[in-house]
Amino acid sequence: MLKHKYVLDPWSIIENQYDSSNMIDSESIFSLGNGKIGQRGNFEEDFSNNQTIGNYISGIYYRDKTKVGWWKKGYPEYFAKMVNCPNWNKIRISINNTLLDLNKCEVLSYNRELNMKEGWCERKVLLKNDKSEKIEIQSKKFISIKRENLGVINYKIKVFENNVKVEVLPCIDVNIRNNDSNWNEPFLETIESLSKNNLGIVKSNIINSNFEISTFFKTEYLINNKKINSSYSQSESKHLIGCKSKFLLNTDDELTIFKVGGYVNSNDSNKNEFNNIIEKESENALKTGFNELCKENIDEWSKVWEHSDVIIEGDIKSQQAIRFNIFHLNQTFNGNDPKLNIGPKGFTGEKYGGVTYWDTEAFCVPFYLGTKHSSVAKNLLNQRYNQLDNAIKNAKNIGLNHGAALYPMVTVNGEECHNEWEITFEEIHRNAAIAQAIKKYINFTNDHNFLDDEGIKILIAISRFWKERVNYSKVLNKYVILGVTGPNEYENNVDNNWYTNYSAKWCLDYTINQLSEIGNRNVKKHESIIKENNLNNKEISNWKKIIKNIHLPYSKDLNIFIQNDGFLNKDLQPANKIPHNQRPINQNWSWDRILRSPYIKQADVLQGFYFFEDHFTKKELQSNFDFYEQFTVHESSLSACVHSVLASSINDIEKAYEYFVRASRLDLDDYNKEIKQGLHITSMGGSWMSIVEG
Amino acid sequence: MLKHKYVLDPWSIIENQYDSSNMIDSESIFSLGNGKIGQRGNFEEDFSNNQTIGNYISGIYYRDKTKVGWWKKGYPEYFAKMVNCPNWNKIRISINNTLLDLNKCEVLSYNRELNMKEGWCERKVLLKNDKSEKIEIQSKKFISIKRENLGVINYKIKVFENNVKVEVLPCIDVNIRNNDSNWNEPFLETIESLSKNNLGIVKSNIINSNFEISTFFKTEYLINNKKINSSYSQSESKHLIGCKSKFLLNTDDELTIFKVGGYVNSNDSNKNEFNNIIEKESENALKTGFNELCKENIDEWSKVWEHSDVIIEGDIKSQQAIRFNIFHLNQTFNGNDPKLNIGPKGFTGEKYGGVTYWDTEAFCVPFYLGTKHSSVAKNLLNQRYNQLDNAIKNAKNIGLNHGAALYPMVTVNGEECHNEWEITFEEIHRNAAIAQAIKKYINFTNDHNFLDDEGIKILIAISRFWKERVNYSKVLNKYVILGVTGPNEYENNVDNNWYTNYSAKWCLDYTINQLSEIGNRNVKKHESIIKENNLNNKEISNWKKIIKNIHLPYSKDLNIFIQNDGFLNKDLQPANKIPHNQRPINQNWSWDRILRSPYIKQADVLQGFYFFEDHFTKKELQSNFDFYEQFTVHESSLSACVHSVLASSINDIEKAYEYFVRASRLDLDDYNKEIKQGLHITSMGGSWMSIVEG
Repeated sequence: MLKHKYVLDPWSIIENQYDSSNMIDSESIFSLGNGKIGQRGNFEEDFSNNQTIGNYISGIYYRDKTKVGWWKKGYPEYFAKMVNCPNWNKIRISINNTLLDLNKCEVLSYNRELNMKEGWCERKVLLKNDKSEKIEIQSKKFISIKRENLGVINYKIKVFENNVKVEVLPCIDVNIRNNDSNWNEPFLETIESLSKNNLGIVKSNIINSNFEISTFFKTEYLINNKKINSSYSQSESKHLIGCKSKFLLNTDDELTIFKVGGYVNSNDSNKNEFNNIIEKESENALKTGFNELCKENIDEWSKVWEHSDVIIEGDIKSQQAIRFNIFHLNQTFNGNDPKLNIGPKGFTGEKYGGVTYWDTEAFCVPFYLGTKHSSVAKNLLNQRYNQLDNAIKNAKNIGLNHGAALYPMVTVNGEECHNEWEITFEEIHRNAAIAQAIKKYINFTNDHNFLDDEGIKILIAISRFWKERVNYSKVLNKYVILGVTGPNEYENNVDNNWYTNYSAKWCLDYTINQLSEIGNRNVKKHESIIKENNLNNKEISNWKKIIKNIHLPYSKDLNIFIQNDGFLNKDLQPANKIPHNQRPINQNWSWDRILRSPYIKQADVLQGFYFFEDHFTKKELQSNFDFYEQFTVHESSLSACVHSVLASSINDIEKAYEYFVRASRLDLDDYNKEIKQGLHITSMGGSWMSIVEG
Repeated sequence: MLKHKYVLDPWSIIENQYDSSNMIDSESIFSLGNGKIGQRGNFEEDFSNNQTIGNYISGIYYRDKTKVGWWKKGYPEYFAKMVNCPNWNKIRISINNTLLDLNKCEVLSYNRELNMKEGWCERKVLLKNDKSEKIEIQSKKFISIKRENLGVINYKIKVFENNVKVEVLPCIDVNIRNNDSNWNEPFLETIESLSKNNLGIVKSNIINSNFEISTFFKTEYLINNKKINSSYSQSESKHLIGCKSKFLLNTDDELTIFKVGGYVNSNDSNKNEFNNIIEKESENALKTGFNELCKENIDEWSKVWEHSDVIIEGDIKSQQAIRFNIFHLNQTFNGNDPKLNIGPKGFTGEKYGGVTYWDTEAFCVPFYLGTKHSSVAKNLLNQRYNQLDNAIKNAKNIGLNHGAALYPMVTVNGEECHNEWEITFEEIHRNAAIAQAIKKYINFTNDHNFLDDEGIKILIAISRFWKERVNYSKVLNKYVILGVTGPNEYENNVDNNWYTNYSAKWCLDYTINQLSEIGNRNVKKHESIIKENNLNNKEISNWKKIIKNIHLPYSKDLNIFIQNDGFLNKDLQPANKIPHNQRPINQNWSWDRILRSPYIKQADVLQGFYFFEDHFTKKELQSNFDFYEQFTVHESSLSACVHSVLASSINDIEKAYEYFVRASRLDLDDYNKEIKQGLHITSMGGSWMSIVEG
């Protein structure tokens, strides 16, 4: 039985154990964000053990030059990575001339709570420093939904002796680098920095880009809840931008540092206005005061929950988990800004660069459709529409023409970022996920205008891609799709991945159907679409030939679709035969051994059953589920949720629940021993699907 | 019709055109070496256009930390790369205070000859510098076969006016870097340098290794062939280690700089003895004089040619080419040092690191067997024997146990260096090439002792590898080998590559036969081998099962072996349909497009017909040749030679000749527009095979 690291609670994540060397895991869990800016759950004060300071702004990225061992023609020039920005949260504290650092203190009691209902995080620590001075610190913070540039910290220090000298340096730490940097290069550079009394501003330029940002903070001090004036002296540390203040506290005195701060960025604001905005917003926030700001934010979160809460009665473990998933999805992306998208780890880590994968369409669009105004899903789809030209370029780049579009595996602006040939060039099923998302959106909203003006163009270009990408096998008398990687990335460069082939067939079919649906509805519109896209009957009849005659590997003996050609030649030992100490296999086996094995990283044929459930009988689902589940190791965060939904379809409620718990508590219980790298935000959409659809 | 860049001549390569921007190509062609040290054909004086200064010592390498975009478990830590050493050849010259630099001169006449019979290279240039001063330079040089640390230059400057001030700085240029460096780090560092009068010594340490080398030179001046004394002053340039001398020349005066130099290294000599060796060798060389040294070297080359010359009458193009191949093979490796091996580009370029590939066994062993004492081939095989433990580790690393050995794709000491999963882990047919080389050696020499004491252990470990690597397919009722890359690297991660499967079968069969051959000859030895290797009947009977029942893809309709499962599903357009401007496809097509195409980089099924020709009928060869040749693009240097031999077997003499010319003149005529990177040394063994075996 898995031990839960955090206290089970329906609305909060509570950490009541302090483990100095493991705070890096909790930093991911306690991340905060408002869809625009976000940050890992770092301590404000110094901390000399493992940590990853992380503060990010959605849409602000660095073009990190591609690093590969052996260049393959067609690789992209760069990987877009969200920038780890100067840290506005930093508060350096010293008590009687000793730096406050939990790692060097004796922690007498420790409690941290992430209150998901109200959207704040609070930490209370009672400690003795190395001089045996007892101190209590209490820090409550949140990122404001309403004020999207702004975060708020209320940091309290209480002492238990007289004449305690407390020196405080609220500041911006500019000594921050992205950990995931190909060439160990800085992603940004400081243009100017200013620190004056209670104000700090650092203006930075994202290197080799037009992006500029300003990091800022402003503070106010209170002693025993009364505002006080203080004198200021400049920070002595070059990389900490701010001013120090000194206080002399007596027994039971409590010093409060009320710090507001955050980022303005050139995507949203004119660079010349940065300082005005900062001045206005921080001043206003200080005036409003911590309690009012917090209340305002609680109101915003209550609106969010009103539309998206899922109540699971009598099962606190699942209740906590599903809310944790919904909470982080909302922290990462709220749909307010049509330029933004959802990174696989949100603001909780740098892995995968924080840019867009097929996860958005396959796993997140349903969540946002189900919990937000439909404009949110539409914005996400419109982004793909706006990047259609780049997707067409992308297909050309790998040698496919005639209007074929291949959406990138990873992108921020429509340009491909990923650089493994077996993924970048071959994991082409991502195209179908976009068509799927269009279908879901249209079915949900009946938004004809989007279909007629944008959606259909995407569908035509995707259909053209499949037409160009298939070839006719004389031996099989079938259309085939060679050299692909399916959703199961533990197979590379395989032929006739059933999921990919079936998805291609479906895309072509759906496009033809939508065209005729438009024709039935609006003859003129249909005509103009035909004309504008240079469609003709021959092209459509070619699509129909492929639909009719594409190879869909099938085993009569086993009554299953075959994952890809040759899959059944493998040594088909079920995954439960793998010794426990060799799991997860991707951390224990050579890549070669994984590829040769029958083990499936995430739902592949079953992903098809998830998307196309109504195309198949329960009996078909049952036999495919039974066959593939035994080989599936769920080493992708996108696997358990699909299995949960399908298990529920075949009425295996126990299994459905088991997979739901695994999907939804993946991070809270750290199944794959990797949360220090950040949370699996996009798969949280999958968890939501498994409760709502399963 | 291809224009020949160099003059056709039976014994020499002659360059009589000067093209300032293209000398980098000729630097490869005019490379010199003696199997121990070697260098590209750089000009001695300054040259401000494209060039790659290259001086290398066989066996002296740097561990260049692996660079990959996405790490896969099992990748090696480093790639061994031979070190580009300080350049002992450098002679900086100024005439009337103007630096001599061909790129800034008007070249009135230019001639460079590589005399392969005698092993020297001579360059004669008549030029006007920017002050319209006419100067003739003549440089003759060679690397001594007999004195393996030593190169010799006789450099003459002739002037045609009075009172010409000539300043000469014979030196070592330490400002040299490997071009092919993963992290742009230096591979060596200077420990100490000395320049005193006519002597220069630079001692260097290969970073993070135990290798040390000393680069040295010593000079003598002659005017009009009379030795003269000169005064010396220290070089002003920090990176040019040596002393300047000044001369005043008059009309028709000829200044000769007789410079001997080279390298001593810690593989061959005690570090403390470096200076003594340098002193002795350079002093002795100077005393011997240029003409005597040259004559001595000519004698050595005549011994080489005595055993290895191939005479082709009435076809100067082929005659020149085959000698060029033989010459470079001998420059690269002579078999004198059992620690050394053959890099794909010898001393002519840095690509592929200069370390060992399967090329050695598959393409070079036959050449050295045919032209050298059999100890040379034995040394090469003994190297693999000495690295058997590492090969066993290497197999373990990818998850194969029970004594299985997988020889590395690329290695210097038995440790794998290569880091593309589709090659490193999957191009496992290399194991069979080693067994092939053992067979060739045994058949040629009948050296029972080697077989009994070393060869059989390699064969057993390789057989164990195949046993571990196959699996049984219930669907096919056959043993299969999944997830491999065959010799055709334009297919990756395929199942049942016919060549690999057939080679595996042959290895098992050959091992069993050799075991019983040993048993027939020497029962006791046989017993001790069985015991020492823990062989038992069950293991051998398992091998026999595989031999009997391994899947060998075959098409009855086409009467061919199928390159790998699924190959016939491709769009089988012959290569001559590819537009000319898209060739070579590896420079024009995305990797994805190449993989999906039916195009074959180098002989694959046909490589099998080359190795196992006697296993098949001429009719079988003919139909496989006809089928596969049409898809083969020969974008590997190892392709044309195999096609030449096979074309000859099916009596297509015209084609055999065409392929032989292509193989043997690959570099001289620069078929693939890449010789600036260096010559294809190992494939030169293939050219030799195609003339001798074809």
